[in-house]
Order: sequence, then structure tokens, then C-alpha cells
Amino acid sequence: MQPPTEIEFPMAMTIGFDALYGLVIDGIDEDGTVRAHVDVDEHHKQPAGLVHGGVYASIAESMTSMATHMAVAGDGRSAQGMSNQTSFLRPVFDGSVHAVARPRHRGRTTWVWEVDMTDDQDRLCAMVRMTIAVR
Amino acid sequence: MQPPTEIEFPMAMTIGFDALYGLVIDGIDEDGTVRAHVDVDEHHKQPAGLVHGGVYASIAESMTSMATHMAVAGDGRSAQGMSNQTSFLRPVFDGSVHAVARPRHRGRTTWVWEVDMTDDQDRLCAMVRMTIAVR
Amino acid sequence: MQPPTEIEFPMAMTIGFDALYGLVIDGIDEDGTVRAHVDVDEHHKQPAGLVHGGVYASIAESMTSMATHMAVAGDGRSAQGMSNQTSFLRPVFDGSVHAVARPRHRGRTTWVWEVDMTDDQDRLCAMVRMTIAVR
Amino acid sequence: MQPPTEIEFPMAMTIGFDALYGLVIDGIDEDGTVRAHVDVDEHHKQPAGLVHGGVYASIAESMTSMATHMAVAGDGRSAQGMSNQTSFLRPVFDGSVHAVARPRHRGRTTWVWEVDMTDDQDRLCAMVRMTIAVR
Repeated sequence: MQPPTEIEFPMAMTIGFDALYGLVIDGIDEDGTVRAHVDVDEHHKQPAGLVHGGVYASIAESMTSMATHMAVAGDGRSAQGMSNQTSFLRPVFDGSVHAVARPRHRGRTTWVWEVDMTDDQDRLCAMVRMTIAVR
Repeated sequence: MQPPTEIEFPMAMTIGFDALYGLVIDGIDEDGTVRAHVDVDEHHKQPAGLVHGGVYASIAESMTSMATHMAVAGDGRSAQGMSNQTSFLRPVFDGSVHAVARPRHRGRTTWVWEVDMTDDQDRLCAMVRMTIAVR
Repeated sequence: MQPPTEIEFPMAMTIGFDALYGLVIDGIDEDGTVRAHVDVDEHHKQPAGLVHGGVYASIAESMTSMATHMAVAGDGRSAQGMSNQTSFLRPVFDGSVHAVARPRHRGRTTWVWEVDMTDDQDRLCAMVRMTIAVR
Repeated sequence: MQPPTEIEFPMAMTIGFDALYGLVIDGIDEDGTVRAHVDVDEHHKQPAGLVHGGVYASIAESMTSMATHMAVAGDGRSAQGMSNQTSFLRPVFDGSVHAVARPRHRGRTTWVWEVDMTDDQDRLCAMVRMTIAVR
């Protein structure tokens, strides 16, 4: 999977929902692993003061959809999120949410990714399995 | 499940992530069913122009966490999201996302909800199963 | 969705894994809802004496794959399980496991079902969301 | 996590559902990783001739429940399956299903495992995320 050469990382998303919550894509490795983060602010939190579960789901959704799209667009195909399964393991209160997305299955009709979310102390805080439809 | 008497619906969320993406809680029925919506704007979208999958996940997370919390707080217990399983069925491009959350299991240690998301034409667009830990 | 006229319900599965654990399909309603059950025996249990979680997953897998297949085979398409998300809510120790599968989404490339599992006292014991690929 | 010294691997399960479908636990590593397999026979298949999805779910359920139980029983606590999320990636027709379960989160109230299922050619065929309640 080769990112278009014009992309420079880190890349702060500038439009849509990803810009609203402040997603930054940090890079895509040779093996397809995608790295991203969000710097936690008050507007990422739920009423109890911890990062809202929807933030983790959103980060995973974006980085895996984007990377799948980049990988298949050259063949005239497109990628679209099919399911998002997020498990919340440990709350994050501040600092950054760091995400690493690994492609586990690159099928003809679906890609499946596993995304680990960690805090600044490198503790696993959320896990997401994303299934992306390829058409 | 009895909402505190001081809450007036519809209630637009005013702090944190729910305020950022514009969640409005429309009401809570006698049987515990929660209704909510988000009016779709450009800042809810992913690059392809449809509502970002994270928006559905966020809506479900908030309405079920909040309602579970309201139901158990009287016993000195608290509620926290444990897992969020969202299936994306049909894209939404504009109008509103309407959500109906039904409690399917009210256990001692977990509550399980199913949340249906529909568009303005009442078509099912996303389904979320939320598991909330009660402690 | 019209079941082939030659099928008579209840239909005890006679080959493969479904025969091994004793799946009985009780019927398919006009609206596509499928009903099935398994009579609990010692060989359905895990070491602690309750019905093994894999039994619920297996029941849901079979009834939704079969019903989707019957619905799309006429168009020369086939159905194959893509994901199975089972939540365990309450243990079953004896009697029967009763399953009701409702089609929630009949898309071109995927069908999504929700399956409720109850015990003889009609208590909800497990919930399964099945996603079936249609090709 | 230390398995009781009296267990000898490989250990073929001899009672209940695990004996019915023929689960063999191959070992537990120092880091808690569990290895198991099932030799595929006709009675593991669904009508189309491939291994039934319920078999993968069952394998994951057993190995993670058992290993969590062994790890927490010394503290007087017990383990019980809470949710099973299986993604089917590639069919298996014969040979063996090989499973490797890794503990990703060992919390006070839940353990979360990821289980990879491969065929005899070491191709990833199914992925399971198991959440086990600890009480």
C-alpha cells in the first residue's frame, strides 16, 4: 500500500467531522499500519470528564476507511465502513489518544482492521475492529 | 426508569463532545426507550460527503450511557460504556439522524441496549448494540 | 421470502454441525422471521454446567445463513456468514434454547439479522447480530 | 498465569460441548497465550461443505473462558463469557482449525482476548474478540 506521494505527515484533517474533533494522521508504514492521534480537549469529553467513547470509534473509522480507500482506489474501487466494534478498556482524561491501525485481512470485498488506542503512558485504552466494504 | 423531573425535552447537550457534534435528546419513554437526533451539517461528514460513522457511534454511546446512569444513580451506582458495536447499513447525506435506544437487558453489572438510527425517510441507516457497565 | 414448498416444519437438521448439536428449525414467518430451538443436553454444556456460548452463536449462524440463502438463491446468489456478535445475558441450565431471528437489513451485498435467544421461562438469555454476505 | 501443574498438554476435552466438537488445548505460554485446535470432520460443517461459523466461536469461547478462569480462580473469583465477536475471513474445508488466543486486557471486572484462527496453510480464517466477565 503506497500513499500518494503528495501527502506529508503528520497531516491534520481540515474538513468535515475529522476536522471537528481534531484528527491528525501521523503516517502510514510500509506494511500498511496507520498511525494517528487526537490531542484531548474539553470538547472531547463526556459529562463524567473522560474522553467520549465516540471519539475512539471516530478515529478508528477514519484512519481505516482512508487507508483502505487509498489502497484500492487505484483499481477503481471504493471503500466504505461496514462495522465498527469498539471495546473500552481504560478511561483517558487528558494528554493524547494515540491510535495504531493494522490491516488484518485484505479481501476482495472486505478489509478487516484492528486498531489499538493508547494513552500517553502507552496503556491500552480502547480496541476497535473495523470492517470496511470494498466495492 | 424515571428521568429527574427538572429535565425538559428536547434537551440540547451543552458541554463536551455531545455539544460539539450537536446531540439533542428528545425524550425518554415510560418503558425506558430514549429518543434523540442530530441535525446533519457539513462538519458531521467524512470526505465522501456522507455522515461519518463515528457520529452514529457517538449518539448511541451518549444516549445509552446517560439513560443507564439516570436509572442506577439513585442506588449509588454509576454507568460506563463497555462496548459499542455499530453496523452501517445506509448512508445519510442530509436532514437529521434519528435515534431510538431500547434497553434489552438490565442486569446487575451490565445493561445492553439496541439503538436504531433512521433518516428523515424513516429508513434504517445504522444499528448499534451498546453494553454499559454498571458498578 | 418464501421457503421452498417441500420443507415441512419443524425440521430437525440431519447433517453436519447442526445435526451434531441438534438444531431444529421451527418455521419461517411471512415477514421472514425464523424460529428455531435446541433441546439442552449434557453435551451442550461447558464445564460450569451451563449452556456453552458457542451453542448460541451456532444456532444464530445457521438459521440466518439458511434463511438468507433461501431468499437469494432464486436470483443465483449465495449467502455466507461474515460476522457473528453474541452477547451472553443469562445462563441456561436445562430445558430448551429458543431462538427468533429477525431480518433487519436486506441489502444487495449484506443482510443483517438480530437473533434473540430465550429460555423456557421466556427470559432473554443471549442476543446475536449476524451479518451475512450476499454474492 | 500459571496452569495447574497437573495439566498435561495437549489436552483433549472430555466432557460437554467441547468434547462433542473435539476441542484440544495444545498449551498455555508463559505470557498467557493459549493454543488449541480442532481436527475438521464432516460433523463440523455447514451444508455448503465448509466449517460452520459456530465452531470458531465455540473454540474461542472455551479457550479464553478456561484460561481466564485458571488465572483468577486462585483469588476466589470466577470467569464467565460476556460477548463473542467473530469475523469470518476465509473458509476452511479440511485439515485442522488452529487457534491462538492472546489476552489483551486483564481488568478487575473483565478480560478481553483476541483469538486468531488459521488453517493448515497458516492463513487467517477467523478472528474473535472475547470479553470475559470476572466476578
